[in-house]
Amino acid sequence: MYDAFLYHPDKGIKTGVSTQEIVDALKDERSLIWLDMLDMDDSDIDFLTSVFNLHPLTIEDFIMPNARPKIEKFKDYFFLIMFSLESIGVNGAEKVKTAELDCCLGKNFLITFHNCPLSSVEVCKERSKKDSPMMMHGADMLLYSILDSCVESYFPIIQKFDNFVDEMSDELFKEPNQETLRKIYHLKNEIMYLRRTIGPQADIISSVARGDFELISPANIIYFRNIYDNLVRLNDIIGTSRDVITGAMEAYTSIVSNRLNEVMKTLTIIATIMMPLTLVASIYGMNFKHMPELNSKFGYPAVLAIMITITTMMLLFFKRKKWI
Amino acid sequence: MYDAFLYHPDKGIKTGVSTQEIVDALKDERSLIWLDMLDMDDSDIDFLTSVFNLHPLTIEDFIMPNARPKIEKFKDYFFLIMFSLESIGVNGAEKVKTAELDCCLGKNFLITFHNCPLSSVEVCKERSKKDSPMMMHGADMLLYSILDSCVESYFPIIQKFDNFVDEMSDELFKEPNQETLRKIYHLKNEIMYLRRTIGPQADIISSVARGDFELISPANIIYFRNIYDNLVRLNDIIGTSRDVITGAMEAYTSIVSNRLNEVMKTLTIIATIMMPLTLVASIYGMNFKHMPELNSKFGYPAVLAIMITITTMMLLFFKRKKWI
Amino acid sequence: MYDAFLYHPDKGIKTGVSTQEIVDALKDERSLIWLDMLDMDDSDIDFLTSVFNLHPLTIEDFIMPNARPKIEKFKDYFFLIMFSLESIGVNGAEKVKTAELDCCLGKNFLITFHNCPLSSVEVCKERSKKDSPMMMHGADMLLYSILDSCVESYFPIIQKFDNFVDEMSDELFKEPNQETLRKIYHLKNEIMYLRRTIGPQADIISSVARGDFELISPANIIYFRNIYDNLVRLNDIIGTSRDVITGAMEAYTSIVSNRLNEVMKTLTIIATIMMPLTLVASIYGMNFKHMPELNSKFGYPAVLAIMITITTMMLLFFKRKKWI
Amino acid sequence: MYDAFLYHPDKGIKTGVSTQEIVDALKDERSLIWLDMLDMDDSDIDFLTSVFNLHPLTIEDFIMPNARPKIEKFKDYFFLIMFSLESIGVNGAEKVKTAELDCCLGKNFLITFHNCPLSSVEVCKERSKKDSPMMMHGADMLLYSILDSCVESYFPIIQKFDNFVDEMSDELFKEPNQETLRKIYHLKNEIMYLRRTIGPQADIISSVARGDFELISPANIIYFRNIYDNLVRLNDIIGTSRDVITGAMEAYTSIVSNRLNEVMKTLTIIATIMMPLTLVASIYGMNFKHMPELNSKFGYPAVLAIMITITTMMLLFFKRKKWI
Amino acid sequence: MYDAFLYHPDKGIKTGVSTQEIVDALKDERSLIWLDMLDMDDSDIDFLTSVFNLHPLTIEDFIMPNARPKIEKFKDYFFLIMFSLESIGVNGAEKVKTAELDCCLGKNFLITFHNCPLSSVEVCKERSKKDSPMMMHGADMLLYSILDSCVESYFPIIQKFDNFVDEMSDELFKEPNQETLRKIYHLKNEIMYLRRTIGPQADIISSVARGDFELISPANIIYFRNIYDNLVRLNDIIGTSRDVITGAMEAYTSIVSNRLNEVMKTLTIIATIMMPLTLVASIYGMNFKHMPELNSKFGYPAVLAIMITITTMMLLFFKRKKWI
Repeated sequence: MYDAFLYHPDKGIKTGVSTQEIVDALKDERSLIWLDMLDMDDSDIDFLTSVFNLHPLTIEDFIMPNARPKIEKFKDYFFLIMFSLESIGVNGAEKVKTAELDCCLGKNFLITFHNCPLSSVEVCKERSKKDSPMMMHGADMLLYSILDSCVESYFPIIQKFDNFVDEMSDELFKEPNQETLRKIYHLKNEIMYLRRTIGPQADIISSVARGDFELISPANIIYFRNIYDNLVRLNDIIGTSRDVITGAMEAYTSIVSNRLNEVMKTLTIIATIMMPLTLVASIYGMNFKHMPELNSKFGYPAVLAIMITITTMMLLFFKRKKWI
Repeated sequence: MYDAFLYHPDKGIKTGVSTQEIVDALKDERSLIWLDMLDMDDSDIDFLTSVFNLHPLTIEDFIMPNARPKIEKFKDYFFLIMFSLESIGVNGAEKVKTAELDCCLGKNFLITFHNCPLSSVEVCKERSKKDSPMMMHGADMLLYSILDSCVESYFPIIQKFDNFVDEMSDELFKEPNQETLRKIYHLKNEIMYLRRTIGPQADIISSVARGDFELISPANIIYFRNIYDNLVRLNDIIGTSRDVITGAMEAYTSIVSNRLNEVMKTLTIIATIMMPLTLVASIYGMNFKHMPELNSKFGYPAVLAIMITITTMMLLFFKRKKWI
Repeated sequence: MYDAFLYHPDKGIKTGVSTQEIVDALKDERSLIWLDMLDMDDSDIDFLTSVFNLHPLTIEDFIMPNARPKIEKFKDYFFLIMFSLESIGVNGAEKVKTAELDCCLGKNFLITFHNCPLSSVEVCKERSKKDSPMMMHGADMLLYSILDSCVESYFPIIQKFDNFVDEMSDELFKEPNQETLRKIYHLKNEIMYLRRTIGPQADIISSVARGDFELISPANIIYFRNIYDNLVRLNDIIGTSRDVITGAMEAYTSIVSNRLNEVMKTLTIIATIMMPLTLVASIYGMNFKHMPELNSKFGYPAVLAIMITITTMMLLFFKRKKWI
Repeated sequence: MYDAFLYHPDKGIKTGVSTQEIVDALKDERSLIWLDMLDMDDSDIDFLTSVFNLHPLTIEDFIMPNARPKIEKFKDYFFLIMFSLESIGVNGAEKVKTAELDCCLGKNFLITFHNCPLSSVEVCKERSKKDSPMMMHGADMLLYSILDSCVESYFPIIQKFDNFVDEMSDELFKEPNQETLRKIYHLKNEIMYLRRTIGPQADIISSVARGDFELISPANIIYFRNIYDNLVRLNDIIGTSRDVITGAMEAYTSIVSNRLNEVMKTLTIIATIMMPLTLVASIYGMNFKHMPELNSKFGYPAVLAIMITITTMMLLFFKRKKWI
Repeated sequence: MYDAFLYHPDKGIKTGVSTQEIVDALKDERSLIWLDMLDMDDSDIDFLTSVFNLHPLTIEDFIMPNARPKIEKFKDYFFLIMFSLESIGVNGAEKVKTAELDCCLGKNFLITFHNCPLSSVEVCKERSKKDSPMMMHGADMLLYSILDSCVESYFPIIQKFDNFVDEMSDELFKEPNQETLRKIYHLKNEIMYLRRTIGPQADIISSVARGDFELISPANIIYFRNIYDNLVRLNDIIGTSRDVITGAMEAYTSIVSNRLNEVMKTLTIIATIMMPLTLVASIYGMNFKHMPELNSKFGYPAVLAIMITITTMMLLFFKRKKWI
């Protein structure tokens, strides 16, 4: 299943193009064909192989899910795997998911393929239908528009992550608990996942921006450099988040230890004051016949006075130790 | 002991080839010989040296176990050491083991050697016997088929590891104990072992995919690039697992500290409440003659009231501290 | 809104230049124009595009905020994004903020753009107005002066950070508390932020100092090398601070554990001494009819003697263990 | 003091060669001289300088102990510092020590120097005396034989380390104590020391194996590649050990914390059960005149019943918390 | 203020040279001038600028303190910043300080500048005055002598650091306390400081040893390689120290935790034994009228027997747990 757009300087943009028209347009250097495929059945594969002359490995890469971006030069085209970032709701919680976007750029055609509808591609299709000048500057600039809109889609999501990290950072020094740790742990893993997604894409676009691919005209290379800059910037933001979160994990351990100290101080203070007092009371609870103090009239108040003295001394001791 | 396959465009595939036939075929550029050796005795060594003209260091590498992948160019062939991943059952538990696969690729021959039967090689042998087109595209494509099947065998095992890591991650925040730590520790070591196995293989296949070896025809290099992509992808998955597990180890320490905090809070709460009460009881257990409270009718209920007051105050104190 | 400076070897420096004068001066190779823009409206954009012939991507970079330094070569000029460091007061506390400085260097013109007034640019404008020789040595030396003053502005701020780190280091071994940890954590994050700001700027100036840009005359490249040296030196200072602070975070955990040890020793000492004494007292508080010691005249002093002996033994035990 | 070996294709190997014979042989391209020096006095230095024409810096490197492997090209020879690994017994415990081996390879001579007898060199000398073909293939192959035997000597020692690491790993989860930590700490330091010894040697042999030195004939370079492979393999084994031991150190901290948890749980359980019981007993030990319970016939059994109830409830509470 | 040395092959070394003699000697290629400056006033600056034709940036680098080594090529000379290590006594404690040494090497002159007297330069001056051959081999060899003596001065200091690390390592497992941690922390920071001093110097001398500077004659390059080797060796020693100390910091945390375990075990043992005994005693201290045991003749001995049994059981329990 595919959407086809055909642009010709003399005729403008045409949608809903027939197979024959595509075959004809491919022979005309001034035409530009954009094929956006959502799913691929056997007839599509035959069509791509016979009309566009794609390599079997390209077809395989189209069909099979890929986990890494890549770029590969073939005789008449180059093949590019990039990833779009989609934020989807799972059981109320929001999850971030990468969606593969395969592109095949020839002299006067561009084939894009994805398994699920991608908002960044939809936007470009809408704009093409509205006669935007997107397709007028050649296949390479069309690819640029799609990739740019794909990379732009990262920013709001990355920004949200950045906010999560800030929130977590605040929580850390206010009321950290086991849940905070769980958040840090999962945030760290998701950030590492994003890093592994964005880094290699930057490498690949960098090779395009260096001018390794002649299908990108030299004047337009600077636009791909723009995409590269965006990817590097994304990578920077994520790198900062990762560093902050790594520091947060270390700090968490120290904070928990600090709290343990507080707990233990409370226990030590209470025990250190109560135990000697109880000992004194226990001594005068002994049943010896001959304990002169017991018969003294001032025995009881004296003992109470001793107890108050002990308590005061202990409190002063802890005061000096800065425990209270 | 070896299995020999002889392919000739005119005659098709022949198994059970005699030594003389091999010698003849080697001289015929259109033939292709595949020798799969499981073990090597002295007669085999003589045969390889005299017929295939292999370098003494190649023979040594065939015989001796190797711990690292490598590729080495010789005058008429290149020598390649790769590793297959085999999952074997040891005392009920499953263990992962790497098995060496040595390959020697010449213009019209391929020699593969392994110490134990490898499922990935067996599959290729079966397919060759069934007249699959595997051997029709030259020695380099035959090598590709074997390496591809060898690298593909990693995926299910790596996937299983990935699942272990996920399980461990869940366990970590539910019921972590010493056993969880032991799992993390061993999983980490096994993952590092896999990393050291896969990384260098990727480097070596990368040099093939760059076209450093003329015995691989330029048109087929892209297939080796495919194997390289798979190895890099494996490396990525493992790298992610390693990062997750490193984070898990750090989190574990914090979780244990958190639990200690819980334990200590319980102890502190009980001690802080019980100790003052016991002190009060002990005081009125003293045997002084002159303790006016003891004779009062309301002494006992008053003391009980004091005790309840102390308990309530303590509980409020801990409530405010968010300990209970 | 812009400030324009026009220098001509015959006429000296002129401020408040009209648009027409700029257009004329651009054609005269001996003239030098410096345009400093604080904000950009549509007429400015038109002016830059038509008169200076700037690329649309340059205009975009001028208008949009950027998060990373970069340098980009165009046909007639190169475009440079650098960052100035401004220390601003927020609610009494001082915060460090980076401010973008965009430069566009042509053969005989320099355009600088910033969103907020930058002290480093103001200084240069003042000096230009006072007929300083800044503009006499060509556009490249003018750029050098501005960048130099921009980078110099980092030193006092970095120095202040360095002092914070030293203070924190002292506090760590004197009176560490939760607040110390919070300081370490935030200092670490700010230092990592500075590192990410300075490092890439050094990379970019390094490419200028290598002579990659012909608009910088070979004789003046050494001055840019000077800026590069300053940036590397800044990076060094920050790197040292980061290492110190990372070590401080680790040390903090150990210090907290050390303190816990002290707390626990206090508790253990008091409990170990008091508990046996209380037991002894409790034993002689039992109400058995037949307890011969109770009737002995020396029972009470004997028990007190036993208690003193127990206490002494315990204290000696802790002395030997070096706990007291 | 030196041992000299002289080989000539026509005359075979001769030991105990006179100075004059060496001078003559040096002029004959077909001869090969091997000088193995154990110590160096002034006459030796004169001899090396005048006969072999060695650079003063080479002589200095021979005499002074070196801490790093290196290779240096001179006009007629190259100079190589490698390290042999010797396991020596110190006070019953075994210690690993590196011993320097300096080599000087010319067209038809090889000079080896070491401060103490090296088993790897001794082996080669024995083999040379027994007319082994070691010296027949030229100076470069002689160097190869010595270096190979030198690097082979690492394997048993590294293997032993590997076993130590495995033992330690087992101990860690069985009965870790302070001694285990001491072992981990020292093992880590020794492994880092080995790493610093082997890594740079691999780099140096790698430059030989790349063919940077013309004194190694192209056909023999592959043998040096073999030594390189061995060094890389050693480095791999050590790298794995280091990773395992780093993980062990982290795990140790967690294990100690786990144990602390166990200790604290025991304390908390006992305190939480005993303290309320003691309180109850203390209450009924008070000497109030008016305590109706004391006179009841069922007071005592009722209190015991209350105590049993409290104990049961507490145990159920800990059971639910999974502490027992 | 400067010391000038003038060497001419025909006239030997002359000290106390007049300005005119310097001007003359500069024109004579066979002469060699060494200017050692301790401080610089305006007349010196004029002198250097007019006579030696130094670039303004070189003069600036001479005057301003620098924090990083660097090397810079100018038309007639190159400029080099290196650092000497001086150990100075501060309040009884010894502190290590780096001292800048600026060198300016021309065809037949060498200018050295330092802010404070450097022992390594003094040594060279003494040797020059005593007609040592230091100045006879050209300006490059004179520079070598000074740098060599400068780098040699690092070794005793680094060695002392190495010993500190060893001492600390011993202390760690014997009697670690807060002071040990403070030592580790400061040692780590000082070692990182040394690392940052030595590493970049090695890089710079490496560029000299690669032959990037024609003022060093090819035959003498190997001497600078010697300095490079020394710097790399220093870097190695420091790297090892850093690794050891990083491990020590980790080990410290574990050791402190281990000690806490010991403390807590002591507490738990004493509490677990004493609490049940005290409970038993308290029970028989209750004042119930009807407690049959109290009247029994064997009540008291029976209770004592029960207490001994409880104690024995507890001790056996802890024995089995390997706590005692």
